[in-house]
Amino acid sequence: MGNSVKRLAILGSTGSIGQQTLEVVRALPHRFQIVALAAGKNTDLLARQIDEFKPDFVYCQDKKARLANAEYELLSLEDMATHPRVDTVVIATSGQSGLVPTLAAVRAGKNVALANKESLVMAGEIITNEAKINDAQILPIDSEHSAIWQCLRGETPPAAQLMLTASGGPFYHYSPAQLNRVTAKQALRHPTWRMGKKVTVDSATLMNKGLEVIEAHWLFDIPFDNIKVLIHPESIIHSMVEFIDGVVKAQLSYPDMRLPIQYALSYPERLPNPGLPRLDWRKINNLTFEQPDFDTFPCLKLAIEAGKKGGTYPAVLCAADEVAVELFLSQRIKFADIARLIEETLSEHDPIAHPTLEEIMAADAWAREKVLKLISGDNL
Amino acid sequence: MGNSVKRLAILGSTGSIGQQTLEVVRALPHRFQIVALAAGKNTDLLARQIDEFKPDFVYCQDKKARLANAEYELLSLEDMATHPRVDTVVIATSGQSGLVPTLAAVRAGKNVALANKESLVMAGEIITNEAKINDAQILPIDSEHSAIWQCLRGETPPAAQLMLTASGGPFYHYSPAQLNRVTAKQALRHPTWRMGKKVTVDSATLMNKGLEVIEAHWLFDIPFDNIKVLIHPESIIHSMVEFIDGVVKAQLSYPDMRLPIQYALSYPERLPNPGLPRLDWRKINNLTFEQPDFDTFPCLKLAIEAGKKGGTYPAVLCAADEVAVELFLSQRIKFADIARLIEETLSEHDPIAHPTLEEIMAADAWAREKVLKLISGDNL
Repeated sequence: MGNSVKRLAILGSTGSIGQQTLEVVRALPHRFQIVALAAGKNTDLLARQIDEFKPDFVYCQDKKARLANAEYELLSLEDMATHPRVDTVVIATSGQSGLVPTLAAVRAGKNVALANKESLVMAGEIITNEAKINDAQILPIDSEHSAIWQCLRGETPPAAQLMLTASGGPFYHYSPAQLNRVTAKQALRHPTWRMGKKVTVDSATLMNKGLEVIEAHWLFDIPFDNIKVLIHPESIIHSMVEFIDGVVKAQLSYPDMRLPIQYALSYPERLPNPGLPRLDWRKINNLTFEQPDFDTFPCLKLAIEAGKKGGTYPAVLCAADEVAVELFLSQRIKFADIARLIEETLSEHDPIAHPTLEEIMAADAWAREKVLKLISGDNL
Repeated sequence: MGNSVKRLAILGSTGSIGQQTLEVVRALPHRFQIVALAAGKNTDLLARQIDEFKPDFVYCQDKKARLANAEYELLSLEDMATHPRVDTVVIATSGQSGLVPTLAAVRAGKNVALANKESLVMAGEIITNEAKINDAQILPIDSEHSAIWQCLRGETPPAAQLMLTASGGPFYHYSPAQLNRVTAKQALRHPTWRMGKKVTVDSATLMNKGLEVIEAHWLFDIPFDNIKVLIHPESIIHSMVEFIDGVVKAQLSYPDMRLPIQYALSYPERLPNPGLPRLDWRKINNLTFEQPDFDTFPCLKLAIEAGKKGGTYPAVLCAADEVAVELFLSQRIKFADIARLIEETLSEHDPIAHPTLEEIMAADAWAREKVLKLISGDNL
């Protein structure tokens, strides 16, 4: 690889992962160049990013936005994700919107640094197949998957078991009654990680961990029964791999998304970056672990079950969760309703095995509508 | 590598590591074949091992011993360590006696599975140079070095820092006054590991960890200032590596020497072995860490200082420790005298930089004599 400059497209540049990706690029300007930036509605921040990083290509969901004065070409997300001038596509959008550009990038044989877990959850079979066919590499940014990927580095035999760690979120020891009184504001206060709103609520319900189990299944080709979840409130061990001889490897760091982002961007190299935190073992006295509570946090179980059933179930899970989280954030449903709505939607779904992308998108649309129907029947 | 059978010579087959090596071979008879066994004075056990494993070559320190009826050829340790019929030489002897056969095996370009830390401590420069020249591979068996070696697997850039973990031994929170009353029997009761007598006492003084720091310096070519020691009483994390990006990898297992032994023997493969324990995360709730207490356990500081000074100092350290531990085990000195005798011996040593093997052996002999002189002056 030498000291070549990698040319990046960042889809979702104004979100939490997008901003932290730009922090990494800012710290290592001789190694990374921003070729394309895409954002949703935060046009002010996008304009500032354009001024600073001077990308060749820009996408903005708000077509009427007045952006920066710099010269650039407006491009669609798909054209951006497949452009020959782009080496690595960073998929930093949240929710379902990451799916189509991820698939486009994979089909174009790009390196895809993937922070969006929904794409793999919804269409893991299609994406991993297309990656194989087109020699595209999927570089996980999620801290757990980055940890597993790093632990597997240089190891040829398959892993016997994965242990995905979970902080447990802000409500881990709450009773069901306490959970029912939780507000959106409380749910957005994550104890260890700095993340976007959707994933922060998903962390509080443990849905996030369930989605990660499905993601891990596709990324590392491991059966669901060999993927375990372990509650680890300190978020220092980001995940572990057990090998066939019984040996376990773990990857550790302070919870800072810039570390897995930089690893995905610089892979196979590791680069020094003085801005990143280093573990201080004078201050770390205790790492704790406990088994997940599937009863109090039913989303985790729902996700793993949907993953095992496969077909269109995971797409329905994702879509129902996305709508339910929005409803919770806008204070239209209670915290415990998130799991209940997802469960009801899944139970009424008529699944398709090995679905096409169109069938996945149809299941997604059906689930979104279904959740809204369910709450209108609830007289909320 | 395929499914080829590796032919092993085990030097020190009746010791703790030797016996555990044979347990691994017994569990994986289709992968390993015992070609040579060498032992000291435990002729009964050696005879039983010969009966079971039917080696071609045998060495027994007790020349008059009546061994098994099986047919075998008596061989010297050096001839055994260099024999063309041997693929991997397991150096499982304790103390200084491992040095000469280790060097012979390395010069013969063998794979050397090394459990004897004294060889590398005494003659690290010579052994690592000869390994490079003769294309010999040193495969560490010590659990900490195996952990580091496994964490470095597949990683091309050098490690930024090594964190060697230490159980702290049976007396870690003892006061100096309590330490002064410690008996040999107490010192031999290690809280987590099943090991030989010498290394168990070395664990109690933390000399063992100091020797491991020196060993790690030579094995992984890392400056002393980048090798840290961390007390971790549960002995689950066996050591850690911090990379240049700040990411840390750790290797974990229950404390069972058969795991690092098997890894060294099977490397680069990992082999399933149902007899080996697997971590049960339903039972592991807490991993704790603290900084080492260099004042109460001066052996650790003495060792690191001797390692930094280099030359013949580490050989003097090893020899003085070996004699002092024997004196402690035979109840001729107190626990705290071990460190004091080593310190006095080191302080009176006239060092040689980049010593030859002969100069190392001379320093070793000088130190042994010096310790005995010191205690005779003590009127013990």
